[in-house]
Amino acid sequence: MVSITDVAKKAGCSATLVSRVVNNQYGVSEKSRQKIQAAIDELGYTPNGLARSLVLKTTNTIGVVVDTLCDAYFFDLIQAIEEEVGKLGYDVLFCSAGNSTEKKSSYINFFMQERVDGILIYGSALDDKKLITKLARSHFPFALIENDMGSLNVNNILLNNQYGSEVAVDYLFQCGCRNIAHVAGDENRQAARRRQKGYLSAMKKHGASNIMILQSGWSEEEGYNTLKEFLSTCRKADLPDAFFFSSDQTAYGGMRALLEAGIRIPDDVMLIGFDDDQPRNHNFSYVPLTTVRQPLSDMGKAAVDILISDIKEKKEIKEKKMFYPNLVIRQTTRKEN
Amino acid sequence: MVSITDVAKKAGCSATLVSRVVNNQYGVSEKSRQKIQAAIDELGYTPNGLARSLVLKTTNTIGVVVDTLCDAYFFDLIQAIEEEVGKLGYDVLFCSAGNSTEKKSSYINFFMQERVDGILIYGSALDDKKLITKLARSHFPFALIENDMGSLNVNNILLNNQYGSEVAVDYLFQCGCRNIAHVAGDENRQAARRRQKGYLSAMKKHGASNIMILQSGWSEEEGYNTLKEFLSTCRKADLPDAFFFSSDQTAYGGMRALLEAGIRIPDDVMLIGFDDDQPRNHNFSYVPLTTVRQPLSDMGKAAVDILISDIKEKKEIKEKKMFYPNLVIRQTTRKEN
Repeated sequence: MVSITDVAKKAGCSATLVSRVVNNQYGVSEKSRQKIQAAIDELGYTPNGLARSLVLKTTNTIGVVVDTLCDAYFFDLIQAIEEEVGKLGYDVLFCSAGNSTEKKSSYINFFMQERVDGILIYGSALDDKKLITKLARSHFPFALIENDMGSLNVNNILLNNQYGSEVAVDYLFQCGCRNIAHVAGDENRQAARRRQKGYLSAMKKHGASNIMILQSGWSEEEGYNTLKEFLSTCRKADLPDAFFFSSDQTAYGGMRALLEAGIRIPDDVMLIGFDDDQPRNHNFSYVPLTTVRQPLSDMGKAAVDILISDIKEKKEIKEKKMFYPNLVIRQTTRKEN
Repeated sequence: MVSITDVAKKAGCSATLVSRVVNNQYGVSEKSRQKIQAAIDELGYTPNGLARSLVLKTTNTIGVVVDTLCDAYFFDLIQAIEEEVGKLGYDVLFCSAGNSTEKKSSYINFFMQERVDGILIYGSALDDKKLITKLARSHFPFALIENDMGSLNVNNILLNNQYGSEVAVDYLFQCGCRNIAHVAGDENRQAARRRQKGYLSAMKKHGASNIMILQSGWSEEEGYNTLKEFLSTCRKADLPDAFFFSSDQTAYGGMRALLEAGIRIPDDVMLIGFDDDQPRNHNFSYVPLTTVRQPLSDMGKAAVDILISDIKEKKEIKEKKMFYPNLVIRQTTRKEN
């Protein structure tokens, strides 16, 4: 690395003078300033940001930890975060921790070491509770998206998953369905549990006694396998009126198994998913899916606003903001007139 | 933030002793170590990483600058980088600079300030040349993916775009096409210029005199508009035998315009794209596209290997590695027997 001494030597002046130019301070003649700037440019000198950060205690940067950067579903969230951060004069670094709490913890620690001013953490892994509880004690600014930490004093951007499921099941009842099965998602995800809870409460509200839960996961593959297995034991006459899936990917997998078995959608069975996501498998003709849409873009924007106001004001009481998903009606449901 | 003094106070010992525990040094009894660790955990103390980095001069982290994180096309690259970095015991931070050289420069500066050990820069914007030339003088480890910096002494992972186009045009000749038009991409991208150059050299090699270049961009929209405009002035009898597009997105747009005009693919006209990318618009039935595939995953892995070996060995002469794309034959071309 080029040091401040190298620059001073090249410009034929003292290191103090170079430091004044780097830090935009007074006491340097225009001529010296130009000579020093030329030396900085020629040598490619970069002021030591870590040392400066130690003094300035700010980076104007936030860090974002997500489970994966390789899922098109998150584009709305990433774009909203980038836009809002830019508007507020910050930069943003992203990293993905897979489903590893250990890795998430390691990235958070790295960010906290004065490399960013605050952190956004996306995801609803139940395993994260311990990590978040510890983080809350550190007084380092952060905000959680999606993972509901209950009464814990943390900035929390939430989606009402239970409400989303209730809206979906209500609509299936309006469509004339009575016999509605739920294809449940990843058990280790809070969101999947809340979605299942919403299914149960809506079924109870409508006085439905025929509760049917097929445990699956959130991937297309799991949805496909779950429905394929179910269909191998279920006579066509005993099919539910509708399947409410815990995620759109699960629904796309399930739809594939149903269509392959010659079951017509929505004539024989109606489907609703959750997320407003796109199919990843482009070698199949999907029926446009009725789904519960998360306002990911609004959530990303709110998360940035809450985090940056916490960075600036060091709030004692953290903010919680709840978002409500809405139903997007497409062609896998049909309402009776 | 919790300080080392807070921990010392809580544990009833000196700050020096806490520092020894934090830095895994000798001279602390097992009993004291446990008491101090308990205080660290309870208070959520994080050792000051910047101060430590200043001493250790290493972060075990690399930074990656891309144009966008919101393009599914880059998933192969991102995944390969994450996997390889993980194998070598490093972490990775991503940021996107849009098409702004200024923003790219700002992120690179931020990373260079001892926040990461090295940087990967993806993209082929011609405007970046000045920035890269300056960066090369700084002796900070970095590697470029895609942007060919010629004789500049930098780590450079390259794709032979010209070769890719030649392979595509050769194949169209094998399919019996003689009258081949090129739909050119973003003029400000080196890759787009090289792809056009490849088209020209292959046409020349085959002795074709009917050179036809339609200037377009790399987006689906631009491809659609370019072809729509072209078709409005071109009689069906005067159609080229084939279109070779500078990118798959351009090709998907062009395909949409062609199919809407009642032109059959590949019967009336054959198409080849570049990138092996998926359509983003799911409301249209695309013909599976013959294309030139970039080995993005191999390129990402090689970039990480070259960068990390440079970080470790501080090489005087930087590495260049050229990758060759290959043709993937699908249904928009048909070979004569």
